[in-house]
This record gives sequence, structure tokens and C-alpha cells, in this order.
Amino acid sequence: MIVVLKPGVQQESRDQLITWLKNLGLNIHISEGCYQTVLGLVGDTGKVDMDLVESLDIVDSVKRISEPFKCCNRKFHPEDMVVEVGSVKIGGGNFCMIAGPCSVESEEQVVAVAKAVKAAGADLLRGGAFKPRTSPYDFPGLRAEGLELLRIARAETGLPIVTEIMSASDLDLFEDIDVLQVGARNMQNYDLLRELGKLNKPILLKRGLANTLKELLMSAEYIMANGNEQIILCERGIRTYTDYTRNTLDLAAVPMLHELSHLPVIVDPSHATGISRLVRPMAKAATACGADGLIIEVHNDPIHALCDGAQSLTPEEYVTVAQEVRRIREIL
Amino acid sequence: MIVVLKPGVQQESRDQLITWLKNLGLNIHISEGCYQTVLGLVGDTGKVDMDLVESLDIVDSVKRISEPFKCCNRKFHPEDMVVEVGSVKIGGGNFCMIAGPCSVESEEQVVAVAKAVKAAGADLLRGGAFKPRTSPYDFPGLRAEGLELLRIARAETGLPIVTEIMSASDLDLFEDIDVLQVGARNMQNYDLLRELGKLNKPILLKRGLANTLKELLMSAEYIMANGNEQIILCERGIRTYTDYTRNTLDLAAVPMLHELSHLPVIVDPSHATGISRLVRPMAKAATACGADGLIIEVHNDPIHALCDGAQSLTPEEYVTVAQEVRRIREIL
Amino acid sequence: MIVVLKPGVQQESRDQLITWLKNLGLNIHISEGCYQTVLGLVGDTGKVDMDLVESLDIVDSVKRISEPFKCCNRKFHPEDMVVEVGSVKIGGGNFCMIAGPCSVESEEQVVAVAKAVKAAGADLLRGGAFKPRTSPYDFPGLRAEGLELLRIARAETGLPIVTEIMSASDLDLFEDIDVLQVGARNMQNYDLLRELGKLNKPILLKRGLANTLKELLMSAEYIMANGNEQIILCERGIRTYTDYTRNTLDLAAVPMLHELSHLPVIVDPSHATGISRLVRPMAKAATACGADGLIIEVHNDPIHALCDGAQSLTPEEYVTVAQEVRRIREIL
Amino acid sequence: MIVVLKPGVQQESRDQLITWLKNLGLNIHISEGCYQTVLGLVGDTGKVDMDLVESLDIVDSVKRISEPFKCCNRKFHPEDMVVEVGSVKIGGGNFCMIAGPCSVESEEQVVAVAKAVKAAGADLLRGGAFKPRTSPYDFPGLRAEGLELLRIARAETGLPIVTEIMSASDLDLFEDIDVLQVGARNMQNYDLLRELGKLNKPILLKRGLANTLKELLMSAEYIMANGNEQIILCERGIRTYTDYTRNTLDLAAVPMLHELSHLPVIVDPSHATGISRLVRPMAKAATACGADGLIIEVHNDPIHALCDGAQSLTPEEYVTVAQEVRRIREIL
Repeated sequence: MIVVLKPGVQQESRDQLITWLKNLGLNIHISEGCYQTVLGLVGDTGKVDMDLVESLDIVDSVKRISEPFKCCNRKFHPEDMVVEVGSVKIGGGNFCMIAGPCSVESEEQVVAVAKAVKAAGADLLRGGAFKPRTSPYDFPGLRAEGLELLRIARAETGLPIVTEIMSASDLDLFEDIDVLQVGARNMQNYDLLRELGKLNKPILLKRGLANTLKELLMSAEYIMANGNEQIILCERGIRTYTDYTRNTLDLAAVPMLHELSHLPVIVDPSHATGISRLVRPMAKAATACGADGLIIEVHNDPIHALCDGAQSLTPEEYVTVAQEVRRIREIL
Repeated sequence: MIVVLKPGVQQESRDQLITWLKNLGLNIHISEGCYQTVLGLVGDTGKVDMDLVESLDIVDSVKRISEPFKCCNRKFHPEDMVVEVGSVKIGGGNFCMIAGPCSVESEEQVVAVAKAVKAAGADLLRGGAFKPRTSPYDFPGLRAEGLELLRIARAETGLPIVTEIMSASDLDLFEDIDVLQVGARNMQNYDLLRELGKLNKPILLKRGLANTLKELLMSAEYIMANGNEQIILCERGIRTYTDYTRNTLDLAAVPMLHELSHLPVIVDPSHATGISRLVRPMAKAATACGADGLIIEVHNDPIHALCDGAQSLTPEEYVTVAQEVRRIREIL
Repeated sequence: MIVVLKPGVQQESRDQLITWLKNLGLNIHISEGCYQTVLGLVGDTGKVDMDLVESLDIVDSVKRISEPFKCCNRKFHPEDMVVEVGSVKIGGGNFCMIAGPCSVESEEQVVAVAKAVKAAGADLLRGGAFKPRTSPYDFPGLRAEGLELLRIARAETGLPIVTEIMSASDLDLFEDIDVLQVGARNMQNYDLLRELGKLNKPILLKRGLANTLKELLMSAEYIMANGNEQIILCERGIRTYTDYTRNTLDLAAVPMLHELSHLPVIVDPSHATGISRLVRPMAKAATACGADGLIIEVHNDPIHALCDGAQSLTPEEYVTVAQEVRRIREIL
Repeated sequence: MIVVLKPGVQQESRDQLITWLKNLGLNIHISEGCYQTVLGLVGDTGKVDMDLVESLDIVDSVKRISEPFKCCNRKFHPEDMVVEVGSVKIGGGNFCMIAGPCSVESEEQVVAVAKAVKAAGADLLRGGAFKPRTSPYDFPGLRAEGLELLRIARAETGLPIVTEIMSASDLDLFEDIDVLQVGARNMQNYDLLRELGKLNKPILLKRGLANTLKELLMSAEYIMANGNEQIILCERGIRTYTDYTRNTLDLAAVPMLHELSHLPVIVDPSHATGISRLVRPMAKAATACGADGLIIEVHNDPIHALCDGAQSLTPEEYVTVAQEVRRIREIL
């Protein structure tokens, strides 16, 4: 950690700070510039409150050098992590297609979609049973009943299930679910993350609405530090000033996360754009820049068939996307 | 709700959409422009999935006219809500000063700060016992023990307590706490909001990192729709591209929220800026634009006294801020 | 244009507004909802100041239905625009590779890079002679001398030149330059845009730092409304809260701009990320989602060769990127 | 400047970098951490391309310690700058009220508004003659004729004039204008800034749509480095994800700019919010946090009087704001 002092700091104040830092067990290297002095802190700087030091009157700025994440840091785990869901592998060169309806609505619907996406080559079935809704008046999902319908679809197709959990108090209901998804709004629900860390089950962790890559990795770290290392990171768009798309898909996060961490990184082009017409080009782009998989919304609701195009893809559109993605994968 | 169709839509597709909307129980007013047709939906449009309609191929855009929040909507509650905490009132012309340490560290610390802020005129004591930390390796707060120390400080000073709750599963521990705070990261933790709605106790609801005013009000709606109307909204800075301050304090949210809702609105200049030197000017600005109160971090830790200035204010600095704020209040 | 009135507006105020709008030559369709009234304005609404109407006390909100851009609007030009630079074509299925050094530094440098990128298959040579620099103390480019060196490189390789113009007063110097680039900081320099509209020469128009797609298209409209239709749009990253990359590359803008406009859209992965290691994956992603070309920084400066990797690509790295991009193009 | 090397860098690469830096005339202090090495660069680091160094393969990150702005840096000019416009002073404890219409429309209008704002205590008259418009089809202002009308209003009231200049090529027309305004879109139009630096006349420099405080100060530096030190900085709202207000007014910029620079800082609550109802609270907030003045839109157009409230204030509303602001000033 580097601490830059303000110009003209008095010797006494400086010495008090250095003494305080040394009492934390750190070695201090002092480097005098023309105008300013820089302290290099050597040792276990994890115990130093960076914000506190930065806020001191004599301090100009502070820079942390080593990343605060360890379990998910590629520096300490150079090999790609491969997450396994039954016979499906994600990461380390294994590409995973996850697809299914936004919400589970009925047995007929989820089984039909599951069969359709399986036929198109999907590896895992997604479907929302517990739905985080901005409004208390909106449909909250079928909840426990929705999980039951997903189990039926799994039995019919053999596809393992990915579905969102919103609260640790619901964990009992998710016991035989294959992959638990943490939604963007819960990325920093630390109590939930801690409990998921005690499971032996893959977790799909979505990036929060306005979170940095470091914050995403720190949330992965919460799970891993509690013992569960099977994490799939997911870029799903961030909130910016743009108004045409619902969010801004930050695809550079894919290679950047691969550099920082050994965890697999998948992309959700459906939520990122909120526009079905953009799912296809963005799915191809995500594949081309090295994503380890895609999670895409597909359904067969009549209104969509009727009007030909909604936020989700129709099964027919999904077949096309899946084919194109496979062709890009082949030449990479 | 207004639905704008794309130019050149075929009569048949248009009729199918209108039939579908009518089947939802809505009346449809059709308005033909030079290039485009606009449908005005009259009736209970709450059941229409706006995103779904917007995603249809024949639809250009959709605009919701009536706000989706009702319980917290000033249109239906023209009078200011006054939240009462013991004898302390917030809103409706009543200004409330909340102060205390970021984290509760020891009995000595929290009692000393409580006495100091009380002497400076604070109405409520804040202090963190359960701390949401980005890193699993950071100090998570004294938790239950921290609540106990807050109770001691309350007994010594008579100041009611405000402190953050992170999970509904901890509710038992907070039974006699005066005001429960929902932090920015939990603003859309709907399970938590729902449980808080069942209490008969004031809730301090902080705006999320990158949430709109509508989303903040929808989260208040979650609590109110479950029966608890005692909500204090809190602007605490939003995430933007700026790099000098930790967040960007969006003070225009104060008069805007007052226009949209009858709930009281307070401001947290400490978290908004992350820099103690900016707390004083921002506290004055918040007061001048009509905030119903301020929540400010104050502590008496030696390192701060030593180096004269940290993220929190010293008790002495807080006295100055409190005096200036009172003088601004007098002339408003 | 749709004007939504607030609930409870008095008949008299409403009639005054309607009279005022009718005096602007518009027909008004009135649609009464349960709570609110909506006015549909039919006719030439271009002369209505949308912000003014929205700010009226009796108005809740205003929505423009037809886009304000015409010359660059695909609705009126369904066929792709193909921009031609000598024998090079951009758009309408023609993919264009533009490459070269960030700054022109010397004849030796620019000729060497030009030869290298030509060998790798580049179609156009880019190079900065007039450089917009945040600091007045930074190197402003070789200016007129830099243009001269670009001409030499063109003579040596046959590659047409793309270079940035910062002020209409420099136009004489750019007379024989093949493509004039408008940088992100000048996207809304309307005096410059107007002058470029009087030329008969392709313009490469970069998206501004925090501009919407509509604003980008309105800037294209400035040029086109003055008579010059040869415009290449360029997505180069937008400013967001993210901190790992210099900007956030908004690739969904590519298919979205293609939907809104018939103009070709290229991508600049070098400025978007600021990190050479990310240029390769982002170049592939941009190609996969349908970009009409790429503009990439390449140079052969010893410090880069020495330390193996800088913001620009080395000629060797560029060869790899160009090959991979071509392979993705083949399967699209 | 601090250069942090990646862990495990080979001695040879490190030595090559150090040699290269020494050849730039710098002294290098080496500080070895447990995992990483940090180089402290001492000397004139202005000539080091920070982005280039940061992009090197062996470099983890770079931190500039000294600010790159000098002329406008409070470290070198501890006394407040006082800008004088005739007998009007801005900064150093002198508060300045600037008011007038968004656009100059007619002699009658601008003279009436000028008299009204003068009566309310305004010090300077603002009014747009050259208008930057997003659309080429919108009213571009009366241009030279508008300047003439402003001169008439000045003659009638004695109020000095502030008006926007968009291009250095118009400078002749602005010879007797009292204060030249650089709009947000031109904040990084360096050719314009350079020319304004050659004048002996106050410049009102508005912060760009998405520019940092450092970038704003670097633009001031462009003007000052060319010889003109009479600069008034203006915070006018930044672009964020918020949707209720046009921009987000970043009031913390006021005390922060005062800390970084000795230049006066004023606030534009009209453009920042785009909503006349918010101008009054935001004007008070700006005053309370230490702004050196306010620039507010005022006009007397019938439609506004008629409908009672538009983006601009009516003269009557301005009187109220001016009184309240004065009372806040008195107690500061």
C-alpha cells in the first residue's frame, strides 16, 4: 500500500502517522519527492482501513497495490477453474449454453421450452421461480410451485436446473436444485453469500447493477472464503446514462475478469439489452471475446409468437443463435 | 399507458394487439398521427407488463402515465407524513439530527460520542453494529454485542437508536431498537423489506448505489404495502463517473422526492462524499434545499484527533455543523 | 408528440394550452384516462419546444414519437449507405480495417507502421497529426508537418489516410486528406460539423464521451443536412463508473445504430479500453456483432517492443487480430 | 509519480524500464514489498506518458502524485482569485448573481428581463445569442443580432453582459462583450480555449457533460497558460443514470474545486435540473455550500406567465430566490 502525503506536512504529524502504522505491524519505506513524500507500506496491509488513512488531513491519497481478493485471484490459481454440473463443464475451454423462460408459468410452458432448448443444444435449463420485482404489486413468481415445475422439466429432459435464490431462509426449498443463481440486486447481500459459501453446489453470481469488477470478485470471495469454490461469474449489463438499451453490456469485463480471476465468466445478453433483437448480435460478440457460456431467455408464449418478437427469444430464434455461436466457438 | 406503434404496421397485427389488450379489461383510445398510431390504454394498467409490450415488433415505445407507487404517492396523500420516534418528530417541518459513530467499537467510545452529539443537539444516535463490508476479511461489526452497547448509550443519554439491519433472520435481536436502517446495498432486498413492513416501527430507507427515485419509492412501497407506513427516505449519494468524491450527492433528489411523495427525506453527507472536509458544506446545502434531517458520522477515535480530520467529524466539528445548520433552518 | 397532463388540471388552463398548441398549426387529439388526460399532437411537431412544454405546471410529461433525425434515419433510407474512399468501400457488407499509430512521430515511424499494417491487410492508414490533449503541456501533435508525413506514407503504400481535424480554420491543410475524423470531444462542435457538411469527402464521426445514440445521429444530421452524406459512425467507448478500462465499450450500439440509421458503424477498441491486451478480444466481439470495420492503434516504438505490450498493438499483434477478424467475417 | 510493478517481474525487464525512465532525467526510488516492487519517480514527471507506462506488460499501475495543473492550482496560489467585471467582483467573498433569458428573442424581451433582474439585484445579464443546439433544425439563436440586442439591454440597465461564444472565428463580434462563456459542449474545444487565453477578459468556463474536476481545471489551465487568468468556473450538472432531472447537480464540486483551485466557482441550477421548480431549492443549496455566485435563467414569455411555471423562472420567482439567497449569504 502506498500513502502519499500532502506537501508541507509537518515532521511531527508525519512521525505520528508512521508510528501508528508501525504499530499495526507494517514496515514503512519513505520516498521523498520534490514536493511530496510517499510512504510504502510493506507487510499485511489487509488490516489497514484504506478509507480512514485517505481521509487524514496530512494524506493526499492512498493506493492499494495487492488486490484484496485471494481465493478467486488468478495470481494464486493460474489454472482455469472448471465448474461441473453433473456431466456439464463450464470454464477451462468448456462452453456452456443456459436457456429457458424468464418466469416459470406452468408445467406446459416450462416443459415445452425445456424440450425446445435441449433440442437446440442447451446444456442447462434456466427459469425464474422466485422473482425479484421492483414493485410489490408485480407477479413474484410461482415460488415453491415454480421449483416443482422446474424439477418436472428436468425429469422430462435431463437438463440440470439454474434458478435464482433470494434469501438464505429459502435454502431448504433449493436442496436438489443444481445451480443457485444470485441476482444482480443481491450481489452484495452478504448474509446470503455467506450461507451459499457453506454449500457444495455451483453458484451463478451475477454482477450488480453498478458494481465494479473488484466488487464482483469480492462477492465471489465471500462465497469462496466460506468453503464453496464452484462459482460462475456473470456479466449482465451495467447501469449507465444510455437510454436505448436497458443496461450497457460491458463485454470488456469478460477478458478482464479472465485476467484477474480463474473463475469461468458467462454473459447474459437478454437482461443486458432488454431487447430480443439485440440478443443475437450480443450473444455472438460475447462468444467472440471469450465468454465461457451464455444465459439466454427463451419462451413460447402466444403473444410473442403472435407479434413475432419480444424480450425473450422464441425457440426458433434460439436455434439460430445457438448455431451461430457454435460456429464462432469452432474458429476460436 | 401510452403505446406508440411503429410506422407502417399492418392492420392485422394492430388488431391482434388491441384485442389482446382489451382482453386484459382495458379500453383503448386510438390516435392516428401523420406517421404513427398511438394507443391510449384506459383502466387498470397495473396488470400490463410494460417491458413485454415495448418489446413487441410492432411497438415503437411505451409510456406509463400514472406512477406505479400508491402508498407513498403524494398525489393520494397531500399532507406531509410525520414520523415519530419517541418524542422526536421527522418531517412536516420537523428537522431531525442523527449522529454517531460509523461502527460501534466499545462502550467507552459509543457512550462518549453519544454524550457529545447529544450536547451538540442531536436527536437520535446512530451507530453500526451489523456492518455490510465489501470484503469478507473486513471487520463485520460487533453485531449483537454492538446492539447491546448502543442500548447502554441510549440508557446514558436518552437518545433513541438508529442502526442497520441486514437480514430478516436477525429481527429478534432488533426488537427494542428504535429505528431500523436499510442500507444502500439492501434497498432492493425485497424479502427484508416485506418483513419490515410487518413491524410497527420507523424504517430509515437508504437509496441504493445506482437506483432511481422511482425505484427508491417502489422499495418504500414494499414496506408500506405490508402495513408499515413509518418510513424515512435517505439520499446518500449515487455512483457516477466522478473520482474525487466516493459518490455524487444528488441533492435535487430532496425537493423532487418531496414533490413525488409525502414521506420525510433526510441526507447523509458522510457516505455521500467520503471526505470529512466536505460534510460541513454538504450538510448546509442539504438543509438549504429542504431536507428533513441529516445523518452524520461522528467519532472520537485518537487517530482522528491526532491527525485532525478523517471521514467522520470530531465532536467539536459536529458542534459547528449543528450550529450552522440550525441558523439556516431559522431563515427558511 | 404526446403530452400527458397532470391529474386535476383545471379546464381553463387546459384550454389555454390547447389553444396555444393549435396556434402552432397542430391538430390535437384528446384522450381521457381515469386519472389523467393525454394530448396527441398531430402535424409538424418539430417546431414545438419539448422541454418547454414539459416544464409547464399542468404538464406531467411529454414524449416525442417521431425521431428528430431525417437524413440519417433508416426509416427513410432502408438501403445501407456505402461510403467509398478511393477503391475502399465501407458499409453494406463491406468491412474496413483502419490502422496506424496514435500520433505521427517521424517519417521513419509512420512509413514503417503503414507498410506493416498494409501487409496485414489494412485498408486505410490512421495517424494523429492534430492531437486533442487534456493538458496544454502535453504534445499537441506535429500538426501540419504530421499531415505531410502521412502523405509520404500514403505515397509509399497507396493506403488512403484518416486523420483528425479539430477546427474548421484548419480546413485548408486537410484538402487532400482522404477521410476527416471528428474526435469524441468535438462531436458536438456544431460549427465544425456544419463546415464539414459543405465538403464532398467522407467524415469519420466518433461518439462523444457521454453522448446518446440519438445525439450521435443528430451530429451526423448536422453534416448531412449541409449536403455531405458520406459519414462513418464510430463507437469508441463511453464514460461510466467502471475503473478497470478507460471507457466502457458499448457494443450494443452497433446493431442499434444499424437499426436506427443506414450509415456504416465501425468500432475503436483501442480507445475504448486503453489496454492493448483487450484490443484483440474486443476487435473480435465488434466484428461478431456486425460492425462495418475497425480502427486500431498500431505502432513499432522500441519501448513497446522492449517491454512487450503497450496501449497500441505491435505490427505482429495486429497481424494476428486481422486474421482472426477475417475468419469471423467469413462465417457471418 | 509512483509505478507499481507486477509480481514476479524479471530483473532484466525491470532494469530496462528503470534505465528508460532515468534517461528521461528522473531519479528512481525502489521500494520492495512482499509481493510487488514500487518505483518512486522523482523529478519533472510531466514529460512521462502515464498511460504509456501503465500499459506496459510489467507494470501493474501508475499513480500521479502531483496534479498536472499549475496556473489554477491553489497549492501555488493560496489566495482566492477575484475576477472583476467592471465594478462587479466574483470570488474571494464576493457573491455574484447572473440572470437573464436562455435565448435573446427580441429587444422588448431582453430589455424587460434585464430591467426585472436588475431590480431584483442581479449583477450581470446573461442571454444566449449563439446557441449550441443538438439538432440542426432547431433555432440557433439570433447570433450577431442577438449580441446587438444584449448591448441595448446593457445600455438601458448598466448590467455587464455574459454570453456564449462557440467558435474562435466569431471573436471579432464579441469584442465589447464583458464576459465570454464557454459552454459545456465546448469545454474541451482546445483551439477555442487557446484563443480565449490570448484575451484580457473574464471567461466563464462551464464543466462538460461528463468531465471530471481535473479535466475542468485542465481546460482552465489551457486558457491561463496562454496568459488570461480571469476565469470563473461553473458547475452545471453532470450526466448520470438519473431520469427525473436533466442532469445531476454535483454540488460537492463547489467545495472540492475551492480546495483544488483559487478560481471562483459559480453554479447554474437552471441547466442542472431543467425544471424551474427545482431552481429555487438548488440555488439555496449552492449558496449554502459556498458557491461564489449563481447563473439563473429568467424570462417573461407569456406562455410561462400563462401556465405559471417553465424551465426558466419568471421575474417574480427570481425576486424570491434572490432574497432567500441573500439571507443565506448573510449568515455564512
